[in-house]
Amino acid sequence: MKNTFGSSVCVTLFGESHGTATGVVLDGIAPGIEIKEDFISAFLLRRRPVGDISTARREQDVFQIVSGVFNGKTTGTPICIVIPNNNVRSKDYSFSLPRPGHADLTAQFKYHGFQDYRGGGHFSGRLTAALTAAGAIAVSALKNRGIMIGTHIKKCAGICDDDFTDPASQIPMMQSKGFVVLNNEKGELMQQKIRSASTEKDSVGGILETVVLGVPAGIGEPWFDTVEGALSHMLFSIPAVKGVEFGDGFAFADMRGSDANDPIEYENGKFVTSTNHNGGINGGITNGMPIVFRCCIKPTPSIGQPQKTADLQSGENTVLEISGRHDPAIVHRAATVVDSVTALVLCDLLAQRFGTDWLKGE
Amino acid sequence: MKNTFGSSVCVTLFGESHGTATGVVLDGIAPGIEIKEDFISAFLLRRRPVGDISTARREQDVFQIVSGVFNGKTTGTPICIVIPNNNVRSKDYSFSLPRPGHADLTAQFKYHGFQDYRGGGHFSGRLTAALTAAGAIAVSALKNRGIMIGTHIKKCAGICDDDFTDPASQIPMMQSKGFVVLNNEKGELMQQKIRSASTEKDSVGGILETVVLGVPAGIGEPWFDTVEGALSHMLFSIPAVKGVEFGDGFAFADMRGSDANDPIEYENGKFVTSTNHNGGINGGITNGMPIVFRCCIKPTPSIGQPQKTADLQSGENTVLEISGRHDPAIVHRAATVVDSVTALVLCDLLAQRFGTDWLKGE
Amino acid sequence: MKNTFGSSVCVTLFGESHGTATGVVLDGIAPGIEIKEDFISAFLLRRRPVGDISTARREQDVFQIVSGVFNGKTTGTPICIVIPNNNVRSKDYSFSLPRPGHADLTAQFKYHGFQDYRGGGHFSGRLTAALTAAGAIAVSALKNRGIMIGTHIKKCAGICDDDFTDPASQIPMMQSKGFVVLNNEKGELMQQKIRSASTEKDSVGGILETVVLGVPAGIGEPWFDTVEGALSHMLFSIPAVKGVEFGDGFAFADMRGSDANDPIEYENGKFVTSTNHNGGINGGITNGMPIVFRCCIKPTPSIGQPQKTADLQSGENTVLEISGRHDPAIVHRAATVVDSVTALVLCDLLAQRFGTDWLKGE
Amino acid sequence: MKNTFGSSVCVTLFGESHGTATGVVLDGIAPGIEIKEDFISAFLLRRRPVGDISTARREQDVFQIVSGVFNGKTTGTPICIVIPNNNVRSKDYSFSLPRPGHADLTAQFKYHGFQDYRGGGHFSGRLTAALTAAGAIAVSALKNRGIMIGTHIKKCAGICDDDFTDPASQIPMMQSKGFVVLNNEKGELMQQKIRSASTEKDSVGGILETVVLGVPAGIGEPWFDTVEGALSHMLFSIPAVKGVEFGDGFAFADMRGSDANDPIEYENGKFVTSTNHNGGINGGITNGMPIVFRCCIKPTPSIGQPQKTADLQSGENTVLEISGRHDPAIVHRAATVVDSVTALVLCDLLAQRFGTDWLKGE
Repeated sequence: MKNTFGSSVCVTLFGESHGTATGVVLDGIAPGIEIKEDFISAFLLRRRPVGDISTARREQDVFQIVSGVFNGKTTGTPICIVIPNNNVRSKDYSFSLPRPGHADLTAQFKYHGFQDYRGGGHFSGRLTAALTAAGAIAVSALKNRGIMIGTHIKKCAGICDDDFTDPASQIPMMQSKGFVVLNNEKGELMQQKIRSASTEKDSVGGILETVVLGVPAGIGEPWFDTVEGALSHMLFSIPAVKGVEFGDGFAFADMRGSDANDPIEYENGKFVTSTNHNGGINGGITNGMPIVFRCCIKPTPSIGQPQKTADLQSGENTVLEISGRHDPAIVHRAATVVDSVTALVLCDLLAQRFGTDWLKGE
Repeated sequence: MKNTFGSSVCVTLFGESHGTATGVVLDGIAPGIEIKEDFISAFLLRRRPVGDISTARREQDVFQIVSGVFNGKTTGTPICIVIPNNNVRSKDYSFSLPRPGHADLTAQFKYHGFQDYRGGGHFSGRLTAALTAAGAIAVSALKNRGIMIGTHIKKCAGICDDDFTDPASQIPMMQSKGFVVLNNEKGELMQQKIRSASTEKDSVGGILETVVLGVPAGIGEPWFDTVEGALSHMLFSIPAVKGVEFGDGFAFADMRGSDANDPIEYENGKFVTSTNHNGGINGGITNGMPIVFRCCIKPTPSIGQPQKTADLQSGENTVLEISGRHDPAIVHRAATVVDSVTALVLCDLLAQRFGTDWLKGE
Repeated sequence: MKNTFGSSVCVTLFGESHGTATGVVLDGIAPGIEIKEDFISAFLLRRRPVGDISTARREQDVFQIVSGVFNGKTTGTPICIVIPNNNVRSKDYSFSLPRPGHADLTAQFKYHGFQDYRGGGHFSGRLTAALTAAGAIAVSALKNRGIMIGTHIKKCAGICDDDFTDPASQIPMMQSKGFVVLNNEKGELMQQKIRSASTEKDSVGGILETVVLGVPAGIGEPWFDTVEGALSHMLFSIPAVKGVEFGDGFAFADMRGSDANDPIEYENGKFVTSTNHNGGINGGITNGMPIVFRCCIKPTPSIGQPQKTADLQSGENTVLEISGRHDPAIVHRAATVVDSVTALVLCDLLAQRFGTDWLKGE
Repeated sequence: MKNTFGSSVCVTLFGESHGTATGVVLDGIAPGIEIKEDFISAFLLRRRPVGDISTARREQDVFQIVSGVFNGKTTGTPICIVIPNNNVRSKDYSFSLPRPGHADLTAQFKYHGFQDYRGGGHFSGRLTAALTAAGAIAVSALKNRGIMIGTHIKKCAGICDDDFTDPASQIPMMQSKGFVVLNNEKGELMQQKIRSASTEKDSVGGILETVVLGVPAGIGEPWFDTVEGALSHMLFSIPAVKGVEFGDGFAFADMRGSDANDPIEYENGKFVTSTNHNGGINGGITNGMPIVFRCCIKPTPSIGQPQKTADLQSGENTVLEISGRHDPAIVHRAATVVDSVTALVLCDLLAQRFGTDWLKGE
């Protein structure tokens, strides 16, 4: 299905970094969900480059809702949102010299030279703006059912943030910050490290941790649409995500079953687990506990240092110095994209489970 | 699409651990691919429990090819393989007491008590036998195009195996072993640790590392059917997989762009990268380098120690002691399942890219 | 998706006419639906050849439920049903001489000679037995929600049956007959004509008309999963179906808008239409009126007369005389397959609309 | 998948009749296909209302290619085309009174009053402009492989056109006409009848017949993605299509097998059939002969006569007189939409069969 994902709630992405626009079609969202353009704008703002730790390219992310919203509410038919590209400097880009760590070379393998190579074209992080616009609507829909998603920078440039202790109150607080950490001092340290890397014409990576509260138990499928499978499928679409782990994730490798199993209790009329090593998912199905996962974000591939590459036309081995405008880190910007993708996948799984009107709320 | 995965090559899984049989339908495999039942048997054998480090339940994994193979070759129509369940001891299982770490509780949430709870029912690792039978055919098909998949136990119970140095020759050698490691001494240590855990009525986890050689460049889609997304979707279906990472994976978090980017070279008429931090994939598309990824396998949830749980019918909090027959580790058995799933996903991506006959070879 | 159809309720078909078995996997059916093997047997019986107007090949259609049913009820996980082939006379079939009107030649084009050509292989009407077994379960599920499907032979060999006047009472009566007509005398005439054709080593076609009662309003999608589109997609899979029309269908061509439009009334607290020219569907969405459609069934291609064909290996133009056992008409047998396919598609659309548990009933 | 169709080549439709715009995303088209905006314009023009036999609403159908085309050629990534709505007179439409024969009532059932009811909203024939823009690209792609599609008005208002005798030369000639018939005199008669109906504030229906030349043999799947199934799925999405038949279609009902079977011949190095009753498809697979099918188009539901309806809010039974601007016939306009949909489905089936680059040509 290529550029479309989902069964009941489907998202289709289009556009190129230096073309007319990027955009998204979001289909299957229940009718009657209130759409506040202010909320979408604010949500998009969280993804935008900020201050001296981000690219100097400053798109306004002015979005246009082309369809699917009428009198301020979703109609139930496909919502198309277009985000025009304005602040474009295509001359910064050359077809001939593929940038290491980017998709330039693989785009050439796949599209045989017909790809729009400018600024990464269809592979550009710019497309995550459209994805985030769709995500804002999905987040709004989930709120109607009391579902809340929060992502913080667990680690960046070697500095670790605190852990969630009370996500229900921490998530709203954290999201109002420009740099989504729980511990502001750690956040400052991370930003210093990012600035250092920037000064050295280099970039850094990090880890994002996401918690989702309020997802009903019993969502997902055993084979093959597990909650982990569906989420990871979309999460790996986010440029620079190279690892996804749920619950204790890779730390399970060094644990024993007696530590890894979450004891089951009946408490206040509900079956719960007293720990949450499995991150709210067993056998691919939600158990009603918070969903917890982490994504690894690799260092931004665009760096100012000279890098070895080869000319696509002549085959000559040469050295590339990327000028242009780039991010020394994208981990803080990717957090909102992770939230968006998570919201979209959950909307799909919930609509599959409970029908197309469920997200509207009661 | 629930229990079916794939667009051009599709796999559908069915069956319950203590029902009549488990099985698989594999659709979209090119006609004319030679099917050797010996090869499938041998492949299934690699997944079977071995010696004192595995469950005492010894299914023969006698499989029956019900359709799609004629005169020893694939017909191009759906291949159904059924594996009857023989060695069943259902009395070991109780509906009332969900086992911690298993899908018993989530199955109850999803199926409201109608699930076949015996031995995990449809969630059982038994279904991976059927998946492995389909995988054997996918592996055969890929061989026609020179594609080779190998998985070793990177880590188990705290012991690390060596790294691949020459996978093209190491993969065939390693696969003939019962316990898939590159370094036999490390393998022995791992097995000792597994035995210790078993003695203590406990279990251990581990990490599997997979290398795929020979996949053409230009496979996969930017949004959302990236190679990482498609592979992880299926990999997370394998019971106990809780993390998937590609290339340097979570280690990218502590790297800088100057280390993480793979320099591009033109060499012997091909564009290659001189390092492979990105595990053969950029922007979701293969670049022709080896595909490298790791899966984390959590410790087997079935352990002999008393565990807290609650009665599904009465709600009473109680303690469960699992008797039955169980694996103190499954990491070594999961390796073949990872190979299978990888082969199935690659067959799908390749058939999408090059058409339905491509896998047949020239 | 090839041999799988559906989003929320999915059906996968496998098998060959003269192979080990044919079978089906039905996934996504709600848990807790009672499965009576007697009902499935009776339903399969309706599809079976009857008397002197059908093939002499008499398969028992003994089916085995391999998975997805536990304690007499659906579990919610995939239901696999296998129907072994017993009464096989493969020597009646030759690979070299493709039978006109059959899929022998197109199978050769598609599968390059690797297809199982015996008895039509995977293209055989035998696979509709498996489809009918799945259909029986879908019909049971729909009954829980008061939905009833009935198909009669509207026309066969030039003889027309009466029209439905009171389908709610006519459908159950009619279905207990071996030959599904509303007017028994017309049915007798049809069967005489079929016998005449048989005597002349020829075959006849016909038209099936289906009515579905009780489908809720508001099912289906505008683009592209209209109820008409989804139903026709599956109906055209039934061998020999070459036309599908809804409501007044092709007769609309000669009507005017003033006759074709169904006036809307508010009656007994519901919006209804006072006529039903549109067959219960407007804009691809159900309006709560009976769904009405017709399928044209072409004459059975297997006839005893000599027919021109060409040898697939030598290219020699020659004449084929089909011996074997064949049906001079299949329109009466196809009726149950149409019911089955209709039930399966409706289960899918309803589960998409109302969620996976809806079919279970309240 | 709702508003998206296709596996390898996918089309997603969005927009409302009186909203900002309608549009389409076309994904999976091979890179390197030349896109001439003139050709798309000319193709759209064929769908536009013409003269006094069509609605007075005259949209310019000015389209904007938002993505997926670079330097005049397809990039291989999703092509988004937006067609702004300009000539909008929303006051002609009322939410309260659903128009008989339209989707107004079913939209209310499905979307609970949140639908954009103006001009039919998302159900409007306006969306076929976007579908036609995508169709123009699909038609261009098929031309690279020598595949040609032609649709004529087989019947309108009781008048029949001639049959195709030499489609390869007739198709190009016919398509340059404003009113797509083979026999101009019959076309004139049809248009007179349409004018008469218009004078009487009524509308007429008709039948479209389509021929496709040059499709390779061996395309399609036995279950369930038959060529007939895939085509009909999309054809029934076209507003007003209520019947689809292939080859001799419903006429098969009165034929015998000896007339219906197409004799097979080996001729000039190819296996062909000497007649084409089956319309180029056997067992759901193409046989290399021309694909032939017909669609019935019901009379336009918008008529000027008073019609019975009921108020959605009060439930009061009342009479509606539609003013607004409407077509007394749409059969001539629908022809281009049928061509478009046919081209899109064939691109999908061909890309599935031969891979994503095949449509680019050699």
